[in-house]
Amino acid sequence: MLEKAKKNDVVFRPHFKTHQSLEIGNWFKELGVKKIAVSSVTMAEYFALDFDDITIAFPTNINEIDKINEIASTAKLNLLVESKDTIALLSEKIKHPINVFIKVDVGYHRTGIDPEDTDSINRILNVIDNCTLIQFSGFLGHAGHTYKCRDKEEIRSIHYAALKIMNVLKESFKVKYPSLITSLGDTPSCSILDDFEGVDEIRPGNFVFYDLTQHQIGSNAIAEIAVAMACPIVAIHNNRSEIIIYGGGVHFSKEFLNDESQGTIYGVVVETLDDGWGKPIKGMYLKSLSQEHGIISVPASQIGNYKIGDILLILPVHSCMTANAMKSYLSNSSKISRL
Amino acid sequence: MLEKAKKNDVVFRPHFKTHQSLEIGNWFKELGVKKIAVSSVTMAEYFALDFDDITIAFPTNINEIDKINEIASTAKLNLLVESKDTIALLSEKIKHPINVFIKVDVGYHRTGIDPEDTDSINRILNVIDNCTLIQFSGFLGHAGHTYKCRDKEEIRSIHYAALKIMNVLKESFKVKYPSLITSLGDTPSCSILDDFEGVDEIRPGNFVFYDLTQHQIGSNAIAEIAVAMACPIVAIHNNRSEIIIYGGGVHFSKEFLNDESQGTIYGVVVETLDDGWGKPIKGMYLKSLSQEHGIISVPASQIGNYKIGDILLILPVHSCMTANAMKSYLSNSSKISRL
Repeated sequence: MLEKAKKNDVVFRPHFKTHQSLEIGNWFKELGVKKIAVSSVTMAEYFALDFDDITIAFPTNINEIDKINEIASTAKLNLLVESKDTIALLSEKIKHPINVFIKVDVGYHRTGIDPEDTDSINRILNVIDNCTLIQFSGFLGHAGHTYKCRDKEEIRSIHYAALKIMNVLKESFKVKYPSLITSLGDTPSCSILDDFEGVDEIRPGNFVFYDLTQHQIGSNAIAEIAVAMACPIVAIHNNRSEIIIYGGGVHFSKEFLNDESQGTIYGVVVETLDDGWGKPIKGMYLKSLSQEHGIISVPASQIGNYKIGDILLILPVHSCMTANAMKSYLSNSSKISRL
Repeated sequence: MLEKAKKNDVVFRPHFKTHQSLEIGNWFKELGVKKIAVSSVTMAEYFALDFDDITIAFPTNINEIDKINEIASTAKLNLLVESKDTIALLSEKIKHPINVFIKVDVGYHRTGIDPEDTDSINRILNVIDNCTLIQFSGFLGHAGHTYKCRDKEEIRSIHYAALKIMNVLKESFKVKYPSLITSLGDTPSCSILDDFEGVDEIRPGNFVFYDLTQHQIGSNAIAEIAVAMACPIVAIHNNRSEIIIYGGGVHFSKEFLNDESQGTIYGVVVETLDDGWGKPIKGMYLKSLSQEHGIISVPASQIGNYKIGDILLILPVHSCMTANAMKSYLSNSSKISRL
C-alpha cells in the first residue's frame, strides 16, 4: 500500500483503528510512515505517544474537548467538522493550534456535508477564518459504500464519483485556500485501484490485516489475511458433525457474512501449519456464536481428525471488530500489546 | 428472582457473565447470595476474590488447567464436563478437590450429552469415581432455545421438557449418587415461570439488566431494563432525519433484533430524566452501526429538539454483549468497575 501511495505521489495516512497497536504502528514508522488516522480521541491519545501527526477521522465529539486540548498541546491534530455548531464550540474552547478538515458526504450518507451545500461549507470556513488557532486543511471523504460492492467495476465507479466531488470542491476553494488538500481512501478502493490521480491523501485501514468481508468485496486474496483467531476445542459432537470452541461473540464480535454455499458464516477454519496457517479447510466454518461458545460445522469425513484441547485457527469476518474485542495479538508466540 | 428462588426452595446461583462486576456481585452478596455461575476461567478467577462457590458454566477448557488448579486451591469450583476425553485429562491433571457437573443437552443442541446416551454418562462417572479429587455434583442443562420463543406457553413447554429430562436422569442416578442435584435456568424460563418444582438449582444471568431481546421474548417489561448506553450526538442530518452518535459496534456489539414496525434495530432511544431514563421515544431507534458510529432514526417532528453534544440514552439489544464491550458502568455518576 505504501509503494502504491509513493508511486502515485499521494500522502499515505494509514488508519490505525484496525490494529490499535503502537507496536504494529512502529512497523509502519520503520518504513517512513509518519502520518496516521484514528477513529477516536482515546486512540489519538494512545498513538500520540509515538506519532505527532494524527487525524481523528470521526466527527469531533465536543464533549471530549479537554482531551483534545491535551493532545493538541503536543501533536499536530487534524479534526473533522461537518456542522457550524461543532466548529463554533471548537473555536470557543480550543487552546492549542489544530487543523480541521470539512467532512464531505461522497455518497455513503453516514456523515458529512452535502458537497453541493456550499452555504454550510462557507459558514464553517467563516468560523475557521476568525479563529487564529484553527487552520483549514481541506476536504475529507469516506466512500464507505464500497463495502457493499461485489466487483471491481462498482468500486472503481464509486471511487471516481467520490473523487469528482472532491475535485469540484478543491477547484472552488483553492483560490482562497491554496494549500487545501483532499483526503479519500477506504480499503476496497485503495486495494483494487492502481491509479490515484487527483487524490492528495489516502487513509486505508483494514488492509493491515484484511478479512473475509474484504475478500468477499474483492479487496484481497484469502492468503493475504494476516490475522487468525486461535480457539481451543472444548467439545466434539460427532452425531451432528460439530465442534464447540472457546471463542464466542465477545471474541469474534457478532459480525457475519452470507456465503453463497454455506449461508451465514462467522469465520472460516484454516489449516494449522508449523509456522502459521494455510488454506481454508473446505466445508469447515464457524456457523454460530453465543457469548463465549462458537459452533464449527465440520465435514463428517474430517471430524475424526480433531480432539478436545486442539487449537483451531479461524479467519475473522471483520478483523477490525475481532481485533478490537481481543485487545492483544500473538506473533511468533510473543505478545503484541494494543490500546 | 431471589424471592422466587426462596419461595420455591431452589438454590439461586445467578450467572455473573452479564455484569462481570465484583461491585454488582456484592449487591447480591448483601442479599445472602453466596453461589454464582460464570462462563470462563478468567471470570472465575476474578470473582474468586469475593465468592468461594463458583460454577464455570462452560465446557471445561483443558488448556486452562493451571488456572483451574489455582482457583480450586482456594474456592469450591464446579466444572462442566460432557466428554470422556475431558474428564480423563482433568482427572490426570487436577491437583485440588473439584466438583463436576455432567452437562446434558436438554434440546438446545449447543453442548451437552444426549440424555439417552447413558453409556457416555457412565463412562464419565467411572473416571470421576476413580479420582479422589473429583466429586460428582449432578446434571446441568441450559434451555437456551427459549431465546427463540416469542410467547410464554412456548417457554413453559421448553422448560417442562428440560425438567423432565433432568428428572429422569436424577431418578436413574440418585441410587448411586444420593446427593446429586439438577441445575437449570435460562433467564426466559426463570422470568416467566413461578413454579420451579422439581428443579434443585437455577442459574439465570441476564435478568440483572434485562434488555430488548429479553423483552421481545417476553421475559421483562421495557421499564425493567436496568442499563442504558449514554452516547453523545456528534452530527445531525435534518434532511434525512438522522442523528449520528459516538457509539458503534465496538460499544453496543453488533447484536440486532427484528422489530415488527421498524425492521432491524440495534437499540431504542429513551427519554432522559433527571435521575435516569423514562419511556422509549416513539420512532427513535438505532438503525445501524459501524465501528464507532451509530445512526439514530429520528421522527422529523422531533429532530429539532436535539443539538450537537447532547447525550442520548439507548436501551441495548443484548445487555450481556454491550456490558462486555463497555468494561465499566456509571451509576449515580460513580464508576462501577468490572473484569
